[in-house]
Amino acid sequence: MNNHLVIMAGGVGSRFWPMSTPERPKQFIDVLGCGRTLLQLTYDRFKGLVPDENVWVVTSAVYGDMVAEQLPMIPKKNILLEPCRRNTAPCIAYVSWRIKAQDPYANMVVTPSDHVVMDVPEFRRVIESALSFTLESDAIVTLGMKPSRPETGYGYIQADLSSASVRNNEIFRVDSFREKPDVATAKRYIQQNNYFWNAGIFIWSVSTIVNAFRVYQPAISEPFESLLKVYGTDGEQEAINQVYADCPSISVDYAIMEKAEEIFVHPADFGWSDLGTWGSLHEKSHKDLYNNVLIGGDIKVYETHNCIIHCTEEKRVVVQGLDGVIVAEKDDTLLICRLEEEQRIRTFSE
Amino acid sequence: MNNHLVIMAGGVGSRFWPMSTPERPKQFIDVLGCGRTLLQLTYDRFKGLVPDENVWVVTSAVYGDMVAEQLPMIPKKNILLEPCRRNTAPCIAYVSWRIKAQDPYANMVVTPSDHVVMDVPEFRRVIESALSFTLESDAIVTLGMKPSRPETGYGYIQADLSSASVRNNEIFRVDSFREKPDVATAKRYIQQNNYFWNAGIFIWSVSTIVNAFRVYQPAISEPFESLLKVYGTDGEQEAINQVYADCPSISVDYAIMEKAEEIFVHPADFGWSDLGTWGSLHEKSHKDLYNNVLIGGDIKVYETHNCIIHCTEEKRVVVQGLDGVIVAEKDDTLLICRLEEEQRIRTFSE
Repeated sequence: MNNHLVIMAGGVGSRFWPMSTPERPKQFIDVLGCGRTLLQLTYDRFKGLVPDENVWVVTSAVYGDMVAEQLPMIPKKNILLEPCRRNTAPCIAYVSWRIKAQDPYANMVVTPSDHVVMDVPEFRRVIESALSFTLESDAIVTLGMKPSRPETGYGYIQADLSSASVRNNEIFRVDSFREKPDVATAKRYIQQNNYFWNAGIFIWSVSTIVNAFRVYQPAISEPFESLLKVYGTDGEQEAINQVYADCPSISVDYAIMEKAEEIFVHPADFGWSDLGTWGSLHEKSHKDLYNNVLIGGDIKVYETHNCIIHCTEEKRVVVQGLDGVIVAEKDDTLLICRLEEEQRIRTFSE
Repeated sequence: MNNHLVIMAGGVGSRFWPMSTPERPKQFIDVLGCGRTLLQLTYDRFKGLVPDENVWVVTSAVYGDMVAEQLPMIPKKNILLEPCRRNTAPCIAYVSWRIKAQDPYANMVVTPSDHVVMDVPEFRRVIESALSFTLESDAIVTLGMKPSRPETGYGYIQADLSSASVRNNEIFRVDSFREKPDVATAKRYIQQNNYFWNAGIFIWSVSTIVNAFRVYQPAISEPFESLLKVYGTDGEQEAINQVYADCPSISVDYAIMEKAEEIFVHPADFGWSDLGTWGSLHEKSHKDLYNNVLIGGDIKVYETHNCIIHCTEEKRVVVQGLDGVIVAEKDDTLLICRLEEEQRIRTFSE
């Protein structure tokens, strides 16, 4: 098997404070209250598609132990540590060169660690379809989520549906990437049927992405190219620590996707959410009869509707008479905030 | 000085759950956020009126150490331990016989440990006035609070204002004790000027109260009379443990006040509250510009009005968009409840 999975797990999840903190961001938390963290759920989705020795996690140096603890089945050497945050392009370049050093024929999926997928069988079908395509081509494939609302918080991918379908009527050439739109533009996008949300999930062969970095981002490719003899040795971490900070901080979307030629989108509809807001967590979670999401601890509610209550396991919580409120409790912090004001939480946490 | 102070500190404060728990009831908590517990504030009010060696605390055996910790200045032997709860009459009988064994001329004030008084100088003036009266008479004096609203949660004392004033136009004979009234009756009471709230604060000489128990409650007086040789010795606790459970569980109001002849009321107005409800705590506490009471921890509020937020010192709390809500957090428990529904808290805690 040449399939490799790369899980990017370096985010800090500041919008979910105090549930998510810089010490333990949301990918390391059982956000859905199902007994598995978002990182573990991400790994679970790929079980059988990728052997454990081909699962890679790129994360901040401070989260390395947490990854090893939550995913004990993957080799420790597959946990790559970023000495500093440099957005997704250097992160993906590092792991791509690292994989290439070991398996030049690798076929890769790159995914965030903190998203949710409701329909896992459909997700797996789409991933397999995309992997088959990149196995036989130099394509860069991104998954495009079928939009269900004029969301202004996501970037959009414009597909060229009029072009001949490239594979099984499922994969299309990308016309353009569009940044987060205003409401009017988003409404126009979703009235057409060729705009999709950019989920940040990519499929490509390792030679394709490495070549793309060489062509479009020499400032990023050169340091990783220079370490060919170091990957997998005891000197790897120290060498990475020396070059990483000098990489430009740039997303893979800007660095590669918007520049490369052979870019494709695989539209998909598997109940995806980036869990970017408490509102999206509410939407994707199990709700009681009164539309409350109750996660963790021993929670009792009375005359309470449309709330999210998220607390640590040991906590006993009684809530009476709230409507549309987030109650989040962790360690030495308690947040109570109206759901419609959740965009202020980042300020509250400072 | 023959003045003695008796603080009754055996209550469990279940209405203030989870701030108040059976392990640490409200008298042992800094409820007002002023740096002193209600027990300590009760002691503070009598400073200078009663020497420390004449301060007595009667409490449940399990709270003895907490009393000693919070009032280190009083002799340990003055902390009397009830082996079980038997309401106020046996409690007062025990401490009265105990004091009499040591000081037959004692003049006593008996007070709950969990009330608040806003105007302490006026409180002290009233206590001194009552003590002067009982020093020279066999009177049983109870303080009667000038009612400010038709409260149905308190008992009322009907004073005989038409009778000749007994002392300084301040102390009057009691016509009758009235149990907690319904609203209509309470409204009638406060339209007249001779009904007062029964605050449960009593003043009498030790010989008066001991005689009253002998006359009206022989079942209570006899066991304590039988222990005259034991008080103050190493055998006291064991002897008390043997007789205490056999005492009838009865309040001093039923046992003595409603039966005895020489009962007087000292009307008073010193900003008293029994802190029997979260509402009364709200009323008596310092409030911010938006009528919020914020006690303990690091509490920040936004668009929040008419709330009580009470948490442990270490807690960081952010509250946005609440109105008229109690937020109480302690150890492993969090309560959020509308103020107008606070009577249900006892049920929530079960």
